[in-house]
Formats: sequence, C-alpha cells, structure tokens
Amino acid sequence: MKSYQEMTKEELLAEKESLEAEYASIKEEGLKLDMSRGKPSPDQLDLAMPMMTALHEESDIIDGMGQDVRNYGSMDGIPEAKALVAQMIGCRPEQVIVYGNSSLNVMYDQVARAELFGICGNTPWKDQGKIKFLCPVPGYDRHFSVTEEFGIEMVNIPMSESGPDMDLVEKYVNTDPSVKGIWCVPKYSNPQGFVYSDETVRRFANLHPAAPDFRIFWDNAYAVHHLYDDDQAEIPEILSECERAGNPDIVLEFCSTSKISFSGAGIAALAASENNLADIRKRLAIQTIGYDKVNQLRHVRFFRDLDGIKAHMRKHAALIRPKFELLNQLFINEETPRGIGSWVMPKGGYFISFESLPGCAAAIVAKCKEAGVVLTGAGAAFPYKKDPSDNVIRIAPTYPSVDELREAARVFVVVARLVSAEHLLEGK
Amino acid sequence: MKSYQEMTKEELLAEKESLEAEYASIKEEGLKLDMSRGKPSPDQLDLAMPMMTALHEESDIIDGMGQDVRNYGSMDGIPEAKALVAQMIGCRPEQVIVYGNSSLNVMYDQVARAELFGICGNTPWKDQGKIKFLCPVPGYDRHFSVTEEFGIEMVNIPMSESGPDMDLVEKYVNTDPSVKGIWCVPKYSNPQGFVYSDETVRRFANLHPAAPDFRIFWDNAYAVHHLYDDDQAEIPEILSECERAGNPDIVLEFCSTSKISFSGAGIAALAASENNLADIRKRLAIQTIGYDKVNQLRHVRFFRDLDGIKAHMRKHAALIRPKFELLNQLFINEETPRGIGSWVMPKGGYFISFESLPGCAAAIVAKCKEAGVVLTGAGAAFPYKKDPSDNVIRIAPTYPSVDELREAARVFVVVARLVSAEHLLEGK
Repeated sequence: MKSYQEMTKEELLAEKESLEAEYASIKEEGLKLDMSRGKPSPDQLDLAMPMMTALHEESDIIDGMGQDVRNYGSMDGIPEAKALVAQMIGCRPEQVIVYGNSSLNVMYDQVARAELFGICGNTPWKDQGKIKFLCPVPGYDRHFSVTEEFGIEMVNIPMSESGPDMDLVEKYVNTDPSVKGIWCVPKYSNPQGFVYSDETVRRFANLHPAAPDFRIFWDNAYAVHHLYDDDQAEIPEILSECERAGNPDIVLEFCSTSKISFSGAGIAALAASENNLADIRKRLAIQTIGYDKVNQLRHVRFFRDLDGIKAHMRKHAALIRPKFELLNQLFINEETPRGIGSWVMPKGGYFISFESLPGCAAAIVAKCKEAGVVLTGAGAAFPYKKDPSDNVIRIAPTYPSVDELREAARVFVVVARLVSAEHLLEGK
Repeated sequence: MKSYQEMTKEELLAEKESLEAEYASIKEEGLKLDMSRGKPSPDQLDLAMPMMTALHEESDIIDGMGQDVRNYGSMDGIPEAKALVAQMIGCRPEQVIVYGNSSLNVMYDQVARAELFGICGNTPWKDQGKIKFLCPVPGYDRHFSVTEEFGIEMVNIPMSESGPDMDLVEKYVNTDPSVKGIWCVPKYSNPQGFVYSDETVRRFANLHPAAPDFRIFWDNAYAVHHLYDDDQAEIPEILSECERAGNPDIVLEFCSTSKISFSGAGIAALAASENNLADIRKRLAIQTIGYDKVNQLRHVRFFRDLDGIKAHMRKHAALIRPKFELLNQLFINEETPRGIGSWVMPKGGYFISFESLPGCAAAIVAKCKEAGVVLTGAGAAFPYKKDPSDNVIRIAPTYPSVDELREAARVFVVVARLVSAEHLLEGK
C-alpha cells in the first residue's frame, strides 16, 4: 500500500472520490455511536452488582471504629475505606481522606479552597494576582475546565512517553512563584496512556518550587486499570518519594473507584501529608458533616482488599482489552501504511490518543459526528480547547459493544483517510 | 412549690447545699450520655434498612430517562428523585437539583460559588467588600459556621413563635445592599421548633432587596418531620409564593433525607427558579460529572412517593415522640414551678430549646459535661457562638434511648436548679 504522501495528485484525487462515495453511503446508514467519554460499558458495571446488596443486616453497618456508618460522623472517612484506598495507591491509611463519589469534585474543591482561603496559611490564590498551572498536553479536559473556571492561566507542557517535559516543569516551578500547580495523570495518562518513568516521578518529588503554596495535583485515576496481566505499569509511590526528598507537602494525590465499581456511585479519595490533611480537614469540617460512609463500607465489604480489587480489574480488562486491540489492529492495517496517523497502544487506562496529520483533527471529529459517530471534541485535550497542531483525537473505546466499536472504527478510518486526502491535496 | 425568685436567701442556700450533694453523687456515677447533636437513634435508622437492598438486579438500575444510574451522567439528578423531592417540599420537579448526601455541603457550595463567581451575573461577593447575612437567633450553628468561614458579617434577628422579626428583616434587606442573605429554617426551626406563620412566609416572598444578589437561604430541613399525626405544621410553599410576588429568583430552598433515611447516606437537594438553576448548573458542570444516582434511585424505590415518606415518618415519630414528651413533662414538673426555665414543646423537628435564667446557660452546659452529660455547646445557636443573654440551651433528645434520656434529663434538671440557685444567690 502506498502512503498518501507518496501518491501523486491524481492518485490522491481518485482516493478522495472513492472515499467520498463511501462516506456518503455511511451517512445514509444513520448510525448513532458514542466514543466521546471514558465510560465503562454496562457489562463492566454488572461486575459490581453484588456490591448493591453487600450491606443488608444491622450487623453490617458498624465500621472499624465501632461507629454506625448510617449516622453522622467520621468526616474524613471510615478506617477500613482509608485502608482500602491506601492499598490501591500504595500509601499509608492515615494519609487518606475518603470523600463522596467524585474525585473531580475533590480536585475542584481543592482549587476552590486554595482560591478562597489559601493553602497551609499562605495568601489565598484569589489575592495573589495572576497565577498559573502547568498542563501536560494532551491531558484531561475536565482538569483544564477547573483551572479555566478560576481564571488560572494554563501553560502547555509537552508530554512524552516517559511523562511531562521535566526540564520545562523544573524551569517553571523552580523559578516562577506564580506557578501554583500542575495537573498530572501519572499512570496510563488521559488520553495517551503514557506512564511516568521512575525518573520523572523522582524529579517531581525533588522540585524546589518558587511558590510555597505550589502543589502537584497527582490524579492517580488509573492506578489499577491495567489491560494486561503480565505487563503492568508500576510507578514509584509519590507521597513517600516526596517525603524522602524532604518535600512531604508538595503533592496532593487523588483517586477514585469510579472505573472500578460504579462510575456514578464509587468512592473518591485524597492522599496527602499530615500538614496538608490538617489544613484540609479544618475547612472540610465547615463544608460537610461527612460523606456517604454507607457507600464506603459497601465498597470495603465487596472488594475486601487489594487482591479483591485486582481480581475485579482483571475481569474489567477481559471485557475492554478486545476493544483496544480491535482499534489498534485496525489502525495498524489502515492508518500506518497510509502514513496518516500515529498512536501508542496503551497498556491500561481508558483511551487511545490518535494523532492525525497536523490540521486534520477538528475536521475528522466533525465529519465523524455528521455520520453519527461522536468523538471527544477536537481540542478538548488542551487548555482553552486549543490544540496548537490540530492533530489530537481522543478515542474512548470502552463504552460501545465490540460490534458497535467495529462499526464506529470503520467510520473513523474512512473519515480519517478522506480528511487526510483532502488536506494533502490542498498542498499539491 | 416555691419559685426560686420567691425564696429567701436562707431557703436558696439550703436548696443549693442539697443540690450540691446531689450533684456530687451524680458525678460519682460516671455517666456518659450525649445529647449534643440532632442525630437519629439506631432504631430510627433501622427503619430504612430495606433500602440497602432496594436495588439488586440489572433491571433495577435504569432511571425514568432510560439511563443507567450506575454510569456517569444526569448531573442534576435523576427525574424520579427530583419528583420525590418536589413532592416532599411541595414544589415542581423541574425546580429541583438532586445532589449527594449533605444539604450542608449544598449550602456551603452556594455561598462559595457566590463568593467566587457571583450570583446570576452579579459581582462576586469576594469583590464587594464587607457583606452581611441576617441570622435569626437562636439558629443552626452550622449555618453560622459557613458564613463565618467566609468572613461574612452576621446580624442577629430575634425569633418569635411566628418566625424572625420581619420588621427588622425588611428594614435590613430592603435598604442595605450589603445584606446578601438570610438563613431560615422555616418549619420546626432549629433549635426552637418554631414554625413560620403564613404572614411571615409571605413577607419573605414580598421583600424588595436593595441587593440584586440577595437570596433567602430557605433550609427546609424538617419539612416532613412531624411528631404528631393530628397536629402537623404546614407552611406556604416558598417558591410559588415568590413567583406570585414577582420575586421568583429571591429564594434558594434546601432539603435532604438525612433525618428520613440515613443521616450519613441520604440525598440532598436544592429547589430554585429557572434563572437560579441555570446559573448553578453552569458552574456545577465544572465541579462534578454528577452525584450518586444509585443512591437517588435507591431512595425512590424504597419510598416510592410522598405517601411512602409520610408513612415512614410516622414510624420515626412513634420512636422519638416519647423522648420529647419525657423532657417536656419533666420540665413542667421541675423547672416551671421553680421559675428557672422556659421552653416551647415543639410539634416536630429535632430539638427542644431550653431558656434558662439569663447568665446561666454556659454554666449549666459546663456542669452537665462535668457530670458526663454532653449538651450542644452554650452559645452554639448564635453567630460567633455568642449568646447575648447566655440563656439558650439546645437539647437534642433523639439519639439516646428513653432510659438514657431519662438519666440525662435528671442530671440536667439538678444542674439547672443548682446553677440557677447559685446565680440568684449572687444577686442577694
């Protein structure tokens, strides 16, 4: 097969015409497929159904402190839920606060409290003039929405397969006191599925921030979300790395069971140093009497421990791995030889990040939508929704069935070829 | 029985000595009783245990929109939960947003968002200099903690049995643009159990606030929390009253099932006008992907409708009414004839507010604590914890068993008599 770059204008024109015909016939099929969000499929959610009835007798409702989880109290979580979360992300139970169902909300609250009240006795961010967050790109759109909401200036930091460009991160963090945070998804990053290298993690732990209220927002969203049994990424545990580096307060770690139990009804958590926890608890006590401890205990009774979580995640992997592999194989067959796209097959997480030819991503997403296949909006993986090269498309393969995914992927490939051909013809 | 005021110095001294002996012997009993917070008792929580298993099959997890409640989505709540809440507080389902487990957190978020982003396009509160909230007193301590947290100046408004002093409320709200809110618990108020009269509610609806971003924070916490079947308070529905008065945006209503289902694992909600809802939803979409819809559906399946809630609350009443009546009768026997305290027996809610002789509340609470009986901190029912007359004590009778309550109440009566006698002797 000839790559599009090698084709003559005439060959490309012929290719385009044939693809236009194919696209027109696809549009007539009236498809309705959604690959826009990282949502578990119903069969993944079914795996956790026994959790629904995990608590049912009066004897089931007392936690490890002897407290009735149905009542008020235990503002920062029940002890066994802290222990479960700690096992999951490899920290100590006393470093954990367990919240409600949304880690995004926990992160939002952290930023909101920093704005309003400051971090650990420092001046509130709202009173510090222009402040900045570093944003490894491509990244998670909802992280960027939070910082944008607060008018925090976002600075793009390029990602590589070993994590963010640490030279740049160090330059910004260690010299600019207006840099207050960085968004990180260290394992199976959203959307590329990249895993921070040991060196990257250690360089994070050894930052010397110019701002005393700088924090790493370490969103360990996919800590146990491996696709393969025999090839699992592990990263150094960030809290102990920061302790060792004499930087115990520099990081706030977030996680949840949203893509382990139920995406709408999991438990979320934060892990941090004693200083940070004390600062947070003081404010949290004004904000709420406590989070849903019944759901916390329900999770503990169902998963029991890390082994329980691992066994459960193997079942998830069995359901979603074929979807990732289907896309990967199709791209290998259809995109690579034509030279119109690249990607890295991830070993975990929820996404494949497809890099089209520069200047083609928005058009591909738009044309897919026209044909009934909804992808994440082009640019969503960048601050202010601005993809500088217009070439990143986040594909979320988990929610559709394998058959639906095959359909959607077929459309995607035709559209990617068509847009690429059109794009290259413009230059001829 | 002679009132303490009628006693001679010698009689009071004798009374005091005898009470001191009684108090000393009580202290030796080493009691440990808690009447500090409005917590349901375990037997109340047991009533909702069938809710734990209300969802158990795959067919149980689809909401009225055909959405899988286990997954992401439906940020502002599932339709049937909105309908249930609407029935409970008498508004329309489309006026409701259903949240997580804590209405306090919903209220905190409202204030936090108003501070950070402003209300409905108005200048953020944080940029408006000194702002004020009106606080009917005595009131709910956690309301006051929220406003204090944000440095909002709190202005005491006296309560009467028909609600806050509306002349004063109107004077402040209608003339002072720095007044941005008022905390209201309109039915079975915390802690007095007072019910706003129809006139009070209508005067609220007909306010003409000097500030365009003034809102009534209408915490309808005890909407269905009656103690008696045949004597239930009803108040005019505030949203429709405000609509009728041409003031649809003036009020934000809050409620929850915390003292209906599980105090730690209920569902909370906000009801408001379309303008307010649009303003809130826009921000909420940044804050979270959605609240726990599984728990929302669990509530709907268990309670079904308002009749289900009413039947359930009758069972609650049967458990807690004897506790209120025990206290009431004891106070009638022991406090009234001695002239050392007054209270109004409530017809619903969670508290009895005992008014001691002025200057005695803090001492009574301290001496009870010394004897192992924990009451809500003196002053807690007032902004800045300052009870100007030092005479309000909030008693929460629901959590202890009837036997424990009898014990605790006996201590309370001895202590109240002792402190009152000491106090009156100081003036002799």
